[in-house]
Amino acid sequence: MQGSEVLTDIVIGMSDGLTVPFALAAGLSGAVGIDLRLIWIAGLAEIAAGSIAMGLGGYLAGKTEMDHYRSELKREYEEVDRVPEREREEVKEFFSNLGLSKDVQDKAVDEMTRDKDKWVEFMMKYELGLDKPDPERARKSAFNIGLSYVVGGLVPLSPYFFVSDGLTGLKVSAAITLCCLFIFGYFKSKLTGVHPLAGAARVMVIGALAAGCAFAVARLIQL
Amino acid sequence: MQGSEVLTDIVIGMSDGLTVPFALAAGLSGAVGIDLRLIWIAGLAEIAAGSIAMGLGGYLAGKTEMDHYRSELKREYEEVDRVPEREREEVKEFFSNLGLSKDVQDKAVDEMTRDKDKWVEFMMKYELGLDKPDPERARKSAFNIGLSYVVGGLVPLSPYFFVSDGLTGLKVSAAITLCCLFIFGYFKSKLTGVHPLAGAARVMVIGALAAGCAFAVARLIQL
Repeated sequence: MQGSEVLTDIVIGMSDGLTVPFALAAGLSGAVGIDLRLIWIAGLAEIAAGSIAMGLGGYLAGKTEMDHYRSELKREYEEVDRVPEREREEVKEFFSNLGLSKDVQDKAVDEMTRDKDKWVEFMMKYELGLDKPDPERARKSAFNIGLSYVVGGLVPLSPYFFVSDGLTGLKVSAAITLCCLFIFGYFKSKLTGVHPLAGAARVMVIGALAAGCAFAVARLIQL
Repeated sequence: MQGSEVLTDIVIGMSDGLTVPFALAAGLSGAVGIDLRLIWIAGLAEIAAGSIAMGLGGYLAGKTEMDHYRSELKREYEEVDRVPEREREEVKEFFSNLGLSKDVQDKAVDEMTRDKDKWVEFMMKYELGLDKPDPERARKSAFNIGLSYVVGGLVPLSPYFFVSDGLTGLKVSAAITLCCLFIFGYFKSKLTGVHPLAGAARVMVIGALAAGCAFAVARLIQL
């Protein structure tokens, strides 16, 4: 469970990290006669911006989830105190939706509502669909996503440091990045239970489309 | 429910759309003596790349969810046929985890496993936590996210079309974008049940940090 959360973060960060800086650099190298240094500056600025936006975005999402859980938990305790009959009805509704008979419904409701903590926990999970979030999750998630974005983003950008013109950089970058996207897509698909080769191809095609589109946009503006 | 899904998509797309192109343009305007046209090119290329990466990323996520649901559904039907006793055990485990008595557990299990479709549906939802996804969702989601990214991205970029140098553009862009991020953060927080002003401030601070960092990175490279 812990491991799968870290993997999810890495997938989120690296997915965009490989794609967007790749496409941006590709777009810029489509601008005729561009100074290579500008590709580095724009690329690194994008990686900085993207990793912070995604990392802190992940942090915010985690914090929001935690705040939401806490405020709903407080509300459920209040409701169980204030309108226990209505809350009992809601528990009963859950068991009746499962399709249990009246008799079993009533017994289950009696047992579920005997202990207040258990009752509230039940309402949180099955009425509201909320699991207790890990309070450390937001911080860890922000770090993992941000770092993965940086690592992912340096892959497509690095070739531009070793070539003498943008188009050569683009060719090397495209070769390396599309390979990486394929491998990345393969493992991502394995994790999510999709056919690995089909999933890998999809991820690679998205990267290629984004880069092609950025390239076309840059060329069009120059006309 | 439908409306809330569209809003979620808009929040996802606009959140990054407002932040990343804003930060990238800010970073580039930090590069001394940069041609404004390069900010437009890089900014529009980023918007093209980002909207496709996020839009198609959303499409892929939706498709993956659908594939995953279908393959798990097939597997549950097979398991109910092949090892019904073990599947009955799992249903029982669910009711025992709720804390129901042995007697009620057994009755509930008997009723739940009488109809195979109901049984499988129950396993999907409460053992695996999977709801049946909307088959149209992936396509709609891709479109909403991509479009929101474009709309969001044009906000911070547009001032650069009307000024004569990058730093002036940055000042106008920062003023407009930070206001928009605040307003956007306010409504986003209302949706997610966070304190609106605190949430709005957080979203704005993330945008400012990302832009500041991109600016610093671009300046550092130039030294």
